[in-house]
Formats: sequence, structure tokens, C-alpha cells
Amino acid sequence: MSMRIALDAMGGDYGPSVVVPAALSALRDHADLELVLVGVEDSIQGALREHGLENEERVSVRPASQVVSSEDDVSQALRNKRDSSIHVGANLVKEAEVDGFVSAGNTGALMAISRLILKTLPGIDRPAIATFLPTRDSRVLMLDLGANVDCNSDHLFQFAVMGEVAARAVYGVEEPTIGLLNIGEENIKGNDVVKVAGQLLRDSEMNYIGNVEGRDIFTGKADVVVADGFVGNVALKTSEGTAELLGHFLRQAFSASWASKLAAFMAGRVLKDFKRKADHREYNGAMLLGLNGIVVKSHGSADSYAFSRAIEVAASEARHSVNRRITHEIQQMLEVAE
Amino acid sequence: MSMRIALDAMGGDYGPSVVVPAALSALRDHADLELVLVGVEDSIQGALREHGLENEERVSVRPASQVVSSEDDVSQALRNKRDSSIHVGANLVKEAEVDGFVSAGNTGALMAISRLILKTLPGIDRPAIATFLPTRDSRVLMLDLGANVDCNSDHLFQFAVMGEVAARAVYGVEEPTIGLLNIGEENIKGNDVVKVAGQLLRDSEMNYIGNVEGRDIFTGKADVVVADGFVGNVALKTSEGTAELLGHFLRQAFSASWASKLAAFMAGRVLKDFKRKADHREYNGAMLLGLNGIVVKSHGSADSYAFSRAIEVAASEARHSVNRRITHEIQQMLEVAE
Repeated sequence: MSMRIALDAMGGDYGPSVVVPAALSALRDHADLELVLVGVEDSIQGALREHGLENEERVSVRPASQVVSSEDDVSQALRNKRDSSIHVGANLVKEAEVDGFVSAGNTGALMAISRLILKTLPGIDRPAIATFLPTRDSRVLMLDLGANVDCNSDHLFQFAVMGEVAARAVYGVEEPTIGLLNIGEENIKGNDVVKVAGQLLRDSEMNYIGNVEGRDIFTGKADVVVADGFVGNVALKTSEGTAELLGHFLRQAFSASWASKLAAFMAGRVLKDFKRKADHREYNGAMLLGLNGIVVKSHGSADSYAFSRAIEVAASEARHSVNRRITHEIQQMLEVAE
Repeated sequence: MSMRIALDAMGGDYGPSVVVPAALSALRDHADLELVLVGVEDSIQGALREHGLENEERVSVRPASQVVSSEDDVSQALRNKRDSSIHVGANLVKEAEVDGFVSAGNTGALMAISRLILKTLPGIDRPAIATFLPTRDSRVLMLDLGANVDCNSDHLFQFAVMGEVAARAVYGVEEPTIGLLNIGEENIKGNDVVKVAGQLLRDSEMNYIGNVEGRDIFTGKADVVVADGFVGNVALKTSEGTAELLGHFLRQAFSASWASKLAAFMAGRVLKDFKRKADHREYNGAMLLGLNGIVVKSHGSADSYAFSRAIEVAASEARHSVNRRITHEIQQMLEVAE
């Protein structure tokens, strides 16, 4: 069974010059993959020729005359750019012409347009942005990363269900443990929203392990960490900022003197191993979970390797029928609750 | 003019065995410093003898028969342990017998007891926990780190005033820039509480630079970063968790093989430089700002070096009359607003 994924060729900082080589690498890795490049035809064709893909049967082009930029106001983009590559890509998902859509475009616009066109899954009030992050020995799925800035307890509960299904389906964790991001481990900690969400999770069939603190996100204590989008976004970006600061200090230490530069040379291979381990490109591709269709957001500054990881995420979601399983699980829980 | 600081000898994971050597080092560094050790007399005297401090004139002991543990319920500790080292220490501040109090005890209990005994400064509704964190070239003061889990816009505004004064007074930044922790840079981003707080800050005389994202905390974009206590706590701990994960990966890379162990040996000095730069002990000592008296919280697992840094913070707050200046600044703003 072949798999078709649409790619927003215009999104992100680099457009087709990153998306096309990423497509090439994804096609090499997966014989059953077909890709539909969405965007301004001329620029896509140019990039395809450059990479020798102009006659590739597994690649097709779907024109879209408009581009949503990162500066565009979301509501403007929603209404006035109906032939944007995001609109066209989301419509391909809706019409079931493709199994998923990947875009490195404006996150707010991608979410708003996808939601307008695809709607949410039955039982889900709000879609959430979810991504895998590294832990010491494995991975953790964290959501919401910024789609919802004022969540109530039901929303957090729904995020937990979606995260649980996605961790199981995409990453193959058998009974994913769920943690609620909070400021202490005890049940009495935190604000009212997380306290009530904790109660809902304790009452559920899910493998809920209680609160996790910011420090525990990366220890692997939970397979899925659930947070309000404001908190999750701050946590994700603070983590990125910390990694950048430490990388800066490390480079500074290794370039401070002749002797330290020599040490850097000696340790070159080790530092490369370390860099690969901590490489955030490996984790590129955030799932917009809860939409009635698969949409994946790539980082705006992703290079072609990172973008190809995002294609993998979309393909994996489709292959494992994540949305059908979320719908099923939510329905079951609603029946139990009745 | 001499300076007197009370130390909770019973707080934290190690009690007098960490507090007494920290006291010794602080006394060595500051000829004008006097210390009052608060807690169970026998254990304190034992530790003093061990470090040759039993006849030191600049050290005195103030007995407290009870100890608040990290497991103690805050309200229980508040009511039933009135002779705890925290109660006694906070009372010493209240009676102006000392200029400040440092404790590595239970954060919730320290805040609740201090607030009950000392009350808040005029114009301040809620105290906040603030700490300095490293940036590429300097430091940033971040608050609140967990004292308040449901802040409104006025609270955030008051945190900004307190943070601005503390950054100026304690760290000597002339016109501290203030940033509001948010999920995007534009004014329209975030939840209603931060949007209104942003408006209050724009209307103020403070050097407000707008929203900062989690990623920017450590770039030095703002001298003071203001957040709700839930968000600030998650950000701080996520940053600690990220640093631990990267440290783990780095150790792993340097111990993977014979060759990498040799490289680690060669790079020993550089790695030490890096470690010192990223050493969180340097930043130990969180100010409980907004209380009518100086109280500093040391990390529970602080060693004596880290605890001595917390003593420095309290001494510095006292030396620069942080509380008098906060009161003055808040009064001025209230007058302008009238």
C-alpha cells in the first residue's frame, strides 16, 4: 500500500531549496512513498530540476498561488490567502488525496487553516501541538506546545489521550506512562486546572503516574508529558535556550587558548558524537494532534535533514492510523464516563 | 557598619554540616559580617567545634527546638511548629536583630512562615521568588519561580518592579531591561493575563522591552524576566533538566571508548572550565522579594560553597537596601497612577 504525503514547498525560511532535497531523501528511504509538492509551480519545478527529480513518477506538483509568510497575521492569512500552499495542502488532506501534510510555515496560520478545513476529531475540543524530545535512554512526547494558551482540565485530559495514542502508535511504547507537568510532585501542588486534570487522569484507565516537574521531562520518568500550551511552549523554548547557552559555553571553553583548541581537535570525534546525540534536528516534526487529518509542522529554520524527519513523522502517523485510534479511544472513555 | 545575617542551621538535606562550613567561608570573605545560627543547639555547637568556630565572636547561636522537614505539610508547619528554626529566624528579621535570614528548608513553609511573620511590603500583594541565572555574557534575574501559581496582571507588574529594583541594587545593572515571559514576541501573543500586564508595563516608566520567549531567557535580551510562578518554576526546572541531560550525554560521549577517555583526559582542563561556567551552585540563593524583611532560600541540596553564595545574596540585598527601594519605587508608581 503506497502512502501519499503533501509537502508545503513554500513554508519555512528556505522554501523549495530545503523541501525538495528533503523529499529526495525521503523517497530514497521509502519505496512506498509518494510526495505532492504544493506551492508556486515555477520555483518548485526549478528546484526539482536542480535535484534531478523533474521526471520522478513518485513526485507531483500541486500549484498554489499564494504564500503565507511568518509575518502574516493569522486571521488575514485565513481569509485572504485561500490559495495559499497551506490551504491547498490541508484541502488535499480533507479530500483524502493524500494521507498527510507537512509544512514549515507560520505555526499559527497552519493550525488555524488546518482546523478550519479539517475540523477536529469527534470528542476532541482543541487540537494540540506535540513533539518527541530526547531523554537519557529514549524519548518523551510532550504536548501542548503552544496551540492553546488557556486550557481547562478537560482539554488537558484530551491531550493526555491523544498523546498516549500517538506515543503508542508512532513510537511503539506499549503502555505509555502519562505525566502532568506541574511545579511539584504532590497532588495538592499547582493551580486548579492541573489539580482537576490530575483527578480526571487518576480516574481514567490510562497509565497515569502523576505530576512531573520540569526537571523530569528529560529523565524518561513519563513517556508522555501533558501541559497547557503556554507552559509547554515556554518549557520547550527554555530547553532550547539552555542547550544553546551550554553549547556556547562549551565552544568558548574549547577555543579559549592554543591548548584548548588542541584539546578540541583531539576530542573532535567525541564532540561530534555528543552533538549528534543532542541534535534537535532529529526531533523535528511536531504533530498537530486532534485534527481530522494528519498535519505536521516542521521548524521554520529546518534544513533538509530536519525536514525529512518531519516527513517521517507524518508517514508514521498515517501508517499507524493515529487519528482512527484517537477517535476510538476517546469514544471508549466517553462511554465509560456515561 | 556591621551586617548580621541569621542562618537556618537545620534546613536542607545536610543541616549544620553544610551551614557551618558555609558560615566559616562567608566570615572569611567579609570582615563586617556577623552570623546567627538558628536551630537545635547541640548539633550546631558540635559542628562549630568541628570547624574551630566555638569561640568565634562573630558567630552566635539562637536555639530553636523544632525542625520543618521537606515532607511537612505547610499549614501544619505554620501552626504546629512555632519554635521551628524558620519561625525563629523570621522573627529575628522582624525584630531587626538581624538584617536577613537564609534557609535551605522547605520552600513552601519558608514562604508561608516568613509571610505570616514579616508581612509584605506596602504596595506589594504577593511576594515572589527570584533568582539570578547565567546568560552568555552576564546574568538575568527571573521571577516568580513558584510562590504564586495563579497570578493576575497586577501581580506580574509588581514582580517587574521588584525585579527591576533587585537587579539594579544587587547586581548593579543601571537601567535594567524588563521582559515578560511569553510564547511569542508580538504584543497580541499569550493569554489575557500577560497581555494586560504587557500594557501596564508599556505604560510605566520602566525599561520594558516587551515579550521574551523561553529561548531568550539565557541570551541576555532582558535583565529581568517576569513570569507567573507556575510558568517560571517550570521554566527554571526544565532548564535544570536540560543541563543535566546534556551533561549526561557529554559524559557518555567522553567515556564511550578508550580513545574517548583519552580525549577526556586531554580536554580535562577545558571541561573543568566549562563546568565552572555552567555551575548552578554559583547562582544559589533565591530572594523572597516583597516580604517586609530579607529572606533568601538556598537549594535544599546545596553544598557549603553553594550555601555561602546564598549568604552573599542576603548580605548584598541588605547592603543595598533592596526593600526600602522597592517600597519607594512602588509608592512613586502608585502616585503617578493616581
